[in-house]
Amino acid sequence: MAISRPLDVQINLNVRGMLPSATVAINERCNALREEGREVFKLGLGQSPFPVPESVVQALRDNAHQKDYLPVKGLRALRQEVAAYHRRTAGVEADAEDVLIGPGSKELMFLLQLVYYGDILIPTPAWVSYAPQADVVGRRVRFMHTKVDDDWALLPEALDALCGEDFGRPRILVLNDPSNPTGLSIPRDRLGELAAVARRHRVVVLSDEIYGELAHDGGHDSISRHYPEGTIISGGLSKWCGAGGWRLGTFLFPRAMRWLLDAMAAVASETYTSTSAPIQYAAVTAFRGGPAIDRYLVDCRRILAGLGRWCAARLRRAGARQPDPTGAFYLFPDLSPQRARLAARGIDGSRELCERLLDETGVAILPGGSFGREDAELCCRLAYVDFDGGAALEAVAALPEDGLVDEAFLRAHCRPVLQAMDRFGDWLSG
Amino acid sequence: MAISRPLDVQINLNVRGMLPSATVAINERCNALREEGREVFKLGLGQSPFPVPESVVQALRDNAHQKDYLPVKGLRALRQEVAAYHRRTAGVEADAEDVLIGPGSKELMFLLQLVYYGDILIPTPAWVSYAPQADVVGRRVRFMHTKVDDDWALLPEALDALCGEDFGRPRILVLNDPSNPTGLSIPRDRLGELAAVARRHRVVVLSDEIYGELAHDGGHDSISRHYPEGTIISGGLSKWCGAGGWRLGTFLFPRAMRWLLDAMAAVASETYTSTSAPIQYAAVTAFRGGPAIDRYLVDCRRILAGLGRWCAARLRRAGARQPDPTGAFYLFPDLSPQRARLAARGIDGSRELCERLLDETGVAILPGGSFGREDAELCCRLAYVDFDGGAALEAVAALPEDGLVDEAFLRAHCRPVLQAMDRFGDWLSG
Repeated sequence: MAISRPLDVQINLNVRGMLPSATVAINERCNALREEGREVFKLGLGQSPFPVPESVVQALRDNAHQKDYLPVKGLRALRQEVAAYHRRTAGVEADAEDVLIGPGSKELMFLLQLVYYGDILIPTPAWVSYAPQADVVGRRVRFMHTKVDDDWALLPEALDALCGEDFGRPRILVLNDPSNPTGLSIPRDRLGELAAVARRHRVVVLSDEIYGELAHDGGHDSISRHYPEGTIISGGLSKWCGAGGWRLGTFLFPRAMRWLLDAMAAVASETYTSTSAPIQYAAVTAFRGGPAIDRYLVDCRRILAGLGRWCAARLRRAGARQPDPTGAFYLFPDLSPQRARLAARGIDGSRELCERLLDETGVAILPGGSFGREDAELCCRLAYVDFDGGAALEAVAALPEDGLVDEAFLRAHCRPVLQAMDRFGDWLSG
Repeated sequence: MAISRPLDVQINLNVRGMLPSATVAINERCNALREEGREVFKLGLGQSPFPVPESVVQALRDNAHQKDYLPVKGLRALRQEVAAYHRRTAGVEADAEDVLIGPGSKELMFLLQLVYYGDILIPTPAWVSYAPQADVVGRRVRFMHTKVDDDWALLPEALDALCGEDFGRPRILVLNDPSNPTGLSIPRDRLGELAAVARRHRVVVLSDEIYGELAHDGGHDSISRHYPEGTIISGGLSKWCGAGGWRLGTFLFPRAMRWLLDAMAAVASETYTSTSAPIQYAAVTAFRGGPAIDRYLVDCRRILAGLGRWCAARLRRAGARQPDPTGAFYLFPDLSPQRARLAARGIDGSRELCERLLDETGVAILPGGSFGREDAELCCRLAYVDFDGGAALEAVAALPEDGLVDEAFLRAHCRPVLQAMDRFGDWLSG
């Protein structure tokens, strides 16, 4: 048998040269460094530090034998629970028929961009995958850069101006609330204003609320309440339920957009087929909720709120511009006040900054360039998640109801994050 | 709050009008009919009748707590086992770096078509999803129609002629061996001839061997042995391991096509991210194999071989052209010898035939039109899987090693399939 020379490289030019997503890549790089014996603080990948609630893990054990292909749109019982969950938490109308289940909300967002024929509007800083997905399917992306002075919020005027350029052009506006990477929620009055502009321009809003349950005050509001006929709510198990690796995402559609749900399901039937059956059965328990899961969420939020504020203060002390976070587990410090000091050390961009920080301190974070910002701005994202969430949950549960998650608590139970922040702070000031 | 009129329908024209995959749709329709109380024989969806081996289910229970995002390309231990599995079963060189794990091989095929820039060559009859995937990503599909007289085999001359039309044009040839829908394997000498033509024209071969373990004689051969530098082997847990609903597929690439694996992984990192972690941990046990799984496979094959031959004979007796199957759990009878009788009952196409059959007998099968054939040919596909596979496995294990899976066994343990075939046969002859 003669083996011929290798086949030629033939790659779709929308894809050629594409690198793995920055968050995925930093995670794999950190794991490799740890295997080499390096001390690494993993503030790169945004993975929940908390274990999956025990009742949900038990539900997966109980359903390990489930082997049947489930319906493309999702297990009926799960779609019902997800609808009930959104009625309860977002106060919106919803029933099972409005829900689509997928193997991660990222996959569902990809299908949305593939199926919906329109531009993608992305306020920045933005999560790393929205724009590359648009590139893969050949959609046009319009970035809308926000400012740290506005707490990184999208201004309704900016949306209005962009949509006015070509009236009636089909568009999807992607809002991530609370935001990855900023850790900030959109204030309620702002939600109403954005909804009014979106309605006027007939823009589809993809409201990525995967961190909704992790609003630190437990008071998440959804733009869907203000713009029900045009908002798709994206959610899933990855963040509030600590089950990122399980891969289960949900979309809730307005009733009048059933055509979009159906078209996405048709493509799903030719791609992922359906979401893993044992995982879906277990997710029923997660979305059904109850006192134990409520308690778990309250405790997660207490820890994240205390830790986030501590980290933000530490960064401000080191000269960063950093508002206190209000949700999720991210900070997006603007280090431009330190521009001169950093330049003196040969650092004039966020990529270089992150490389040097990892190299010199073992602290892994991501550059602002991965979130749609200019490299020269000197912004970066860090995820304050590198601690034993299971132990921290036990410790916080032992506190009195009004007990403070103070620095002593954090030093005891979220130690690697505090160490990492101290190293980062000292390195910045150094 | 004023709710405006519904947003306009804006659908990518590659997707608009697409219906859910035929196999998925027939499954959901049958389930709905059963819920209405109708007696339905489910020979539509090709789902393994057998339970997941107990050791694999136990591995899932044991790993229910696994919550981390796993590497895009797959859990390292799983990639190692999949490579070892292919070395063992296909006799090809392979190591972990050559393996890509995904949430179903269907999803991986979609990524392949998205990433590789070339035409898609599909011998028909063919599985329902290859061509719609090409439509979604805008690839050109070339069908190569085979004949029942050739046992539905692709002739090397036909491949050579097509590739000669435009020498050097990038192409993927999709071979499904054993075949869904025909239930036939490609003979060994034919594999070598096809490999030689593919090599000459530098065609990438996607060898879909998801039914490889279900070659009824246990003697599956892979075209990869004949064309290692150009063959991607597709596999997964869905068929031989009875775990269709779990959603785990595998691709094995030639070392020289690492560029394709890497490009697919980059897109995966922006879509499904990684495959469900608990499922991947469980799959390690499945691919590792061992005596219990070997025994399970031997028993599955004995049942399928006996049942497939019985069904084929029953169809021939009713006037169909139907060779004995050699793999998987499908038959693709050609009912054209009954054309006049059927026409007298107002049936002149395969869709009408399947509708009438379901309506009049409760037997659900799929029309040849769903497999890339002309409706007027009067072919259809049936999956002989509607029986209690767990009970049948227990029964066959109690037989002596050389005990026959005869009609008495089948009447006792695969009863719904035999009933369905009798109804189908009587209906045809009636």
